[in-house]
Amino acid sequence: MSSNNIVFKPIGIIHTEFKNKINVPIQPRFSNSKGTVEIFPEFVVGLKDLENFSHIILIYYFHESKSYDLEVRPYLDEKKRGVFATRAPRRPNNIGISIVELEKVVKNILYVNKLDMIDKTPLLDIKPYIKSFDIKTNSKEGWVKGKIKQNHISDNRFS
Amino acid sequence: MSSNNIVFKPIGIIHTEFKNKINVPIQPRFSNSKGTVEIFPEFVVGLKDLENFSHIILIYYFHESKSYDLEVRPYLDEKKRGVFATRAPRRPNNIGISIVELEKVVKNILYVNKLDMIDKTPLLDIKPYIKSFDIKTNSKEGWVKGKIKQNHISDNRFS
Repeated sequence: MSSNNIVFKPIGIIHTEFKNKINVPIQPRFSNSKGTVEIFPEFVVGLKDLENFSHIILIYYFHESKSYDLEVRPYLDEKKRGVFATRAPRRPNNIGISIVELEKVVKNILYVNKLDMIDKTPLLDIKPYIKSFDIKTNSKEGWVKGKIKQNHISDNRFS
Repeated sequence: MSSNNIVFKPIGIIHTEFKNKINVPIQPRFSNSKGTVEIFPEFVVGLKDLENFSHIILIYYFHESKSYDLEVRPYLDEKKRGVFATRAPRRPNNIGISIVELEKVVKNILYVNKLDMIDKTPLLDIKPYIKSFDIKTNSKEGWVKGKIKQNHISDNRFS
């Protein structure tokens, strides 16, 4: 049913130090890796006012994910979990989200920290992180509870 | 450059009480509206383990947004802001994210609360909300600071 297709085009490219899918921090929390987000010139006007936010949500395309499973062994667990109960990078629609720190904006380049995606990742959208909307302190985190240690990097399970 | 196209297909449909774009809570925070997320049968296996999360991130398509501006007057302000510094529903790629409360999962139906999107919104992805990844208590929220009141619903500015 191609009539159901939803078509997006990248608004930019994320440049990181991670050249392949292994040994990448699995979330911004485990990263101190700085890099840049290059916004294509036709979208630069849309960056106005962004610099006053300390954190931004990058929404991007897992461009090296070519297939998916509905049950996966996520990086934080040895058991198989339903893919929608994980942040795994191979998904029915390969969309990733990362909350990163925004250091400065110079023309069409965002200087960011805490990157957790591979180099040349296509960017789909940016949204400001807003405490009143995005903090849910009373949330219960299912199978993840107790699983998070000081550091987690990717292995080859989604390669 | 059609070679840059990124093509997704909906994994389900969000059913809400909001039949048009006006008078909709502008964020889950301002909503007590319950509804359902219908997941298409071929993806149901991917829902395993989701029910133990109290909050989930719905990633969806603003299907009634047909164009965009790079500067917008967001619902929370009278000044024009760069679209990427807002959560406005008309964007270069019309992707929405909402953190909603998950009440239960029955087969392919998620029963959810705090909906803020219009009825029949196509769902692209679900991710679990995970406190350790998604809470940034030290974030600074730019132009939004001081603008949030007890209740905010949409008007016609993005219709």
